[in-house]
Amino acid sequence: MRPTFENIQEAANRIAPLIHHTPVLTCQSIDRISGAQIFFKCENFQKAGAFKMRGAANAVLSLSEDELDRGVATHSSGNHGQALAKAAQSVGAKAYIVMPETAPIVKQKAVAEYGAEIVMCKPTLQAREDTLAEVVKRTGATFIHPYNDDRVISGQGTAALELINEISALDVVMAPVGGGGLLSGTAITTCACLPNARIIAGEPKGADDAYRSLQAGEIIPSESPDTIADGLLTSLGSKTFPIIRDLVEEIITVDDDEIVAAMRLIWERMKIIIEPSCAVPLAAVLQRKDHFIGKRVGIILTGGNVDLEKLPFSSM
Amino acid sequence: MRPTFENIQEAANRIAPLIHHTPVLTCQSIDRISGAQIFFKCENFQKAGAFKMRGAANAVLSLSEDELDRGVATHSSGNHGQALAKAAQSVGAKAYIVMPETAPIVKQKAVAEYGAEIVMCKPTLQAREDTLAEVVKRTGATFIHPYNDDRVISGQGTAALELINEISALDVVMAPVGGGGLLSGTAITTCACLPNARIIAGEPKGADDAYRSLQAGEIIPSESPDTIADGLLTSLGSKTFPIIRDLVEEIITVDDDEIVAAMRLIWERMKIIIEPSCAVPLAAVLQRKDHFIGKRVGIILTGGNVDLEKLPFSSM
Repeated sequence: MRPTFENIQEAANRIAPLIHHTPVLTCQSIDRISGAQIFFKCENFQKAGAFKMRGAANAVLSLSEDELDRGVATHSSGNHGQALAKAAQSVGAKAYIVMPETAPIVKQKAVAEYGAEIVMCKPTLQAREDTLAEVVKRTGATFIHPYNDDRVISGQGTAALELINEISALDVVMAPVGGGGLLSGTAITTCACLPNARIIAGEPKGADDAYRSLQAGEIIPSESPDTIADGLLTSLGSKTFPIIRDLVEEIITVDDDEIVAAMRLIWERMKIIIEPSCAVPLAAVLQRKDHFIGKRVGIILTGGNVDLEKLPFSSM
Repeated sequence: MRPTFENIQEAANRIAPLIHHTPVLTCQSIDRISGAQIFFKCENFQKAGAFKMRGAANAVLSLSEDELDRGVATHSSGNHGQALAKAAQSVGAKAYIVMPETAPIVKQKAVAEYGAEIVMCKPTLQAREDTLAEVVKRTGATFIHPYNDDRVISGQGTAALELINEISALDVVMAPVGGGGLLSGTAITTCACLPNARIIAGEPKGADDAYRSLQAGEIIPSESPDTIADGLLTSLGSKTFPIIRDLVEEIITVDDDEIVAAMRLIWERMKIIIEPSCAVPLAAVLQRKDHFIGKRVGIILTGGNVDLEKLPFSSM
């Protein structure tokens, strides 16, 4: 059973007290450059700095009291960990966050500020999973997967719901794809609310497992993904792949130079801070202008958690 | 004759087609850190990236057709130049912008994009004034002073008007002070609309002419100002000094480390881009927390034009 649009509507009501209703911004100069009319749903202003708060809040608020007593746990390179920590803190529950030693310091600090217990591990998927299994065994905490979880997918789908409720008649709705939780939720919402709209994802060329999986008709995980978009390194899961296969029209891949250029454009023209992963859909629009010219395009800006000491801007 | 509140109301109507009505944002974590309840009027999202668009638009729209035919001219280290260029472009008039060779490249590029003619000069006040005088003599353009001009002061006062119309019952209204155009307009508006509110300015210690001028009771210009807040290097003028002397309760000076820390806090917590000058009032609040604790404080965030290749964030 996949999450339904009704699940997403329920999630929207459930999480309302824990999240921000984020603004939708437009930018005349980016519209002029792209030839499209773009509506940016600013989840970089979301609590904990990213849309991940929606899925984490929905998961936490779906637990029983007994489960909440034992806490929640996850592995996350950053935003899901922060979000789960903050969601757990909001309801007085304990959170255990397994993080790779390579996670940006700003993200480690944020998780700690939200009162979670950080458990460090080596930066490999195997190490993350082993460490998480130990934590769950030790504490009895409930594992909340970053994306391969119906409650998380339903929560992420609420961003597109707010966007579509505010901006009617979108021709295209876009999100980046990593593990596919946001894209799956966005696709379910968009299909239900705007059946004629196209759902298009942006993906980094250096972590293009979703693109290759759709081509192959089965999940082809990334083996050593390498991209500046560090929120999109993960591969599709068993729950997200079939939703994306059935509902998403196209995945456009972009290279890191295109991602940084799009990120810079948003920083300079919109004066808002977004992280590299967040710039991927705009990079896709700018790469394929002919696809989008004259269209009303909704883009979920996913997050704004960057390490200000390690920015990718150099002389151009 | 000083600008009156009626002049500011007239300016608000006049410039409405040329400017953005900018949002007022709040931030729970900055409120927690400061102990105050802060309402940020986001002029960093204003057209041309700063509140200066308001004064420039009001000045340009106050000119006769004959004056518009000959164009406008100014000297500006950045934001006023961009704003005047854009305001002139909006009405099809020519703009001549005298800029020091040291102006950030991002600001030079923006002025050029708005179709203005840039005239470079040495980075001294004398060179700017001499070069401007030559331009005015050659072209017949009308000089629009960056701040010592009633039309400009009235335009700048419209930012506080929008803020106060949206957020009632402010205890304190704050702006940074450089030449004093924004602070003068803000003070006139606040006195008229909120007679019991306190008007407090923030000023860089490295360019503290306004602080010293208020102490001395006469204008004491800065001789070699030195601060990261490059929008606040100028000294009070004959029109701005008496307004500030009569209406502003206090000027709090802050050093560059305090400015960068406040700037970083806004970048990290609010995910919006502001320039160093813009962080000065928040730096003042954080320096004197006891002044502001429990108060409802309105702060004009003045601009977001930074050179992304020269950011002041290093390991802390």
